[in-house]
Amino acid sequence: MPDEIGIIESIVSLAGKVPRGYAKIGDDVAVVRPRKGKLVVKVDMLVEHTDVPIGMTYRQAARKSVAMCVSDFAAKGVKPDSFMVSLGLRKGVTQEQVEQLGLGFHDAEREWGVSLVGGDTNEAQELVIDCAMVGFGERMVSRAGASAGDALVVTGPFGYPPSGLKILTGGAVSQAKFASAAKDSVLKPTPSLGVGLALAPFLTASMDSSDGLARSIHTLARESDVGFELSSLPRAEGVEEFAQMNGLDPQSLVLDGGEEYIVVGTVRQSKMRQAREAARKAGGELIEIGRATSKKGEVLLRSGGKPVRIRDAGWTHLSSG
Amino acid sequence: MPDEIGIIESIVSLAGKVPRGYAKIGDDVAVVRPRKGKLVVKVDMLVEHTDVPIGMTYRQAARKSVAMCVSDFAAKGVKPDSFMVSLGLRKGVTQEQVEQLGLGFHDAEREWGVSLVGGDTNEAQELVIDCAMVGFGERMVSRAGASAGDALVVTGPFGYPPSGLKILTGGAVSQAKFASAAKDSVLKPTPSLGVGLALAPFLTASMDSSDGLARSIHTLARESDVGFELSSLPRAEGVEEFAQMNGLDPQSLVLDGGEEYIVVGTVRQSKMRQAREAARKAGGELIEIGRATSKKGEVLLRSGGKPVRIRDAGWTHLSSG
Repeated sequence: MPDEIGIIESIVSLAGKVPRGYAKIGDDVAVVRPRKGKLVVKVDMLVEHTDVPIGMTYRQAARKSVAMCVSDFAAKGVKPDSFMVSLGLRKGVTQEQVEQLGLGFHDAEREWGVSLVGGDTNEAQELVIDCAMVGFGERMVSRAGASAGDALVVTGPFGYPPSGLKILTGGAVSQAKFASAAKDSVLKPTPSLGVGLALAPFLTASMDSSDGLARSIHTLARESDVGFELSSLPRAEGVEEFAQMNGLDPQSLVLDGGEEYIVVGTVRQSKMRQAREAARKAGGELIEIGRATSKKGEVLLRSGGKPVRIRDAGWTHLSSG
Repeated sequence: MPDEIGIIESIVSLAGKVPRGYAKIGDDVAVVRPRKGKLVVKVDMLVEHTDVPIGMTYRQAARKSVAMCVSDFAAKGVKPDSFMVSLGLRKGVTQEQVEQLGLGFHDAEREWGVSLVGGDTNEAQELVIDCAMVGFGERMVSRAGASAGDALVVTGPFGYPPSGLKILTGGAVSQAKFASAAKDSVLKPTPSLGVGLALAPFLTASMDSSDGLARSIHTLARESDVGFELSSLPRAEGVEEFAQMNGLDPQSLVLDGGEEYIVVGTVRQSKMRQAREAARKAGGELIEIGRATSKKGEVLLRSGGKPVRIRDAGWTHLSSG
């Protein structure tokens, strides 16, 4: 069983080759070469029993812990530069598991162009990975800038992660193609950093959707002092059929799931054509699902008949509900 | 029982009043006003079953989690600016415990002039607090700059924390005055940030001593390619008597304990007078305990008779030894 020192060596041999201008990993602190703009920082903790479902490897967990931070940088339009990881590892952790963690951090480094610059290793009763990420940006898209009339947009479809979770834990049946996309969304969440950065100049407000689409829309409404009227829901392909096969509510899978790591934001109507083009050029898509209204805090879905109120559901840690 | 949202509100009401130029706590990321110099970052994770002994309150644990980071900044001579905390909380966490955490973070803000600027809240099987700290500095004292002949110095006495731990867990008897100092060192660890910053211009190498004095000296030896000859040990007052009363090895209490949060460093002989004066002005002390030699990696204690080799003992997480 590797100890703290062996663990650090293993991980640094796989990830953490810091660029020039940064301190060697292993000193008491890490040094990052400053760039122009404000310093933007973020911490996000992955905890095994809530964030690591059955079927997820240590490599995937390590990558996910970084993805959780990247997603927020994407939604704020800020390029991340580097990250640190605090590890809480079980007493019996194996050399192979440690190497899996190193590989997962390296996956993240390559996918999002970030550098592992430091960390901390501890013993814990379950796997805990806390990722602290830093970046620099001249401007950060806030949650508070939406105005009545702005288009409500998302950068991808919703519903895969909650479905994938049910499939992974053996609680649901599904068609093969849907199952594959749904499971991938859980095991290999992929925030679209490039799309977020490309969209930033056009976003009046935005946030990521890691606590669910409904929660994100309600938060934007509250922080921007507006309401929203949705004309459609960004349903993932096959989610209706999956819901039907398993006696689930498709609307809830789309609205209340969480862990989507998709940008939810608002764009002035006059900028929509440019924004759509920017997203497309960055390899993504921009889906318009409604518009901001002046009815503060009211979130309605109006597709066909009577408008339906969308409740502020979603993932709340430590909630007894 | 408070949920994630209530927890964030409680903590922000007690700590986390961010200064101008910083983002409001609660957005997806935190924004820090950049200052001159390189960006220095650090993460340190506090885990209940290894870092929170019997008798330590949630308030003390929160303060300690920040102290762990401050200690490294002190040893590197870099002023910390702000910190974030990722919390892993037990399912049954009470409102009072949450408020204790807020008070503890506020204690840290006041003591070390740092600002809580963001965080993350999660459910975990034991209390986990990961502190991520950022600061700015033109120069960072490394571990690698000691030369043969430099004085080996520490900024305080050693032996209180391992003794305090034994007293707190009921495994040792002690005199009242010693017990009080020893327990305080565990429950309220106080890195001397002011002394570290004042000393930095005179230090050729340094690190903190959170894994024990012997470990720190061996690490400085390895990284600086020197050896060390100690002429005395910086024994805490009363540690010999405590060791005798409990059948313990006083030298091991001083050398192998850990969690001291004291600066261990080297100073050119020609700068010792100035360094001593700088430490005194900052309200601290500088204790010379030996000197660097050219015998790479060799750490000896020569006090009186035959020199004794000091082994590289200390705290290693996940070590089976």
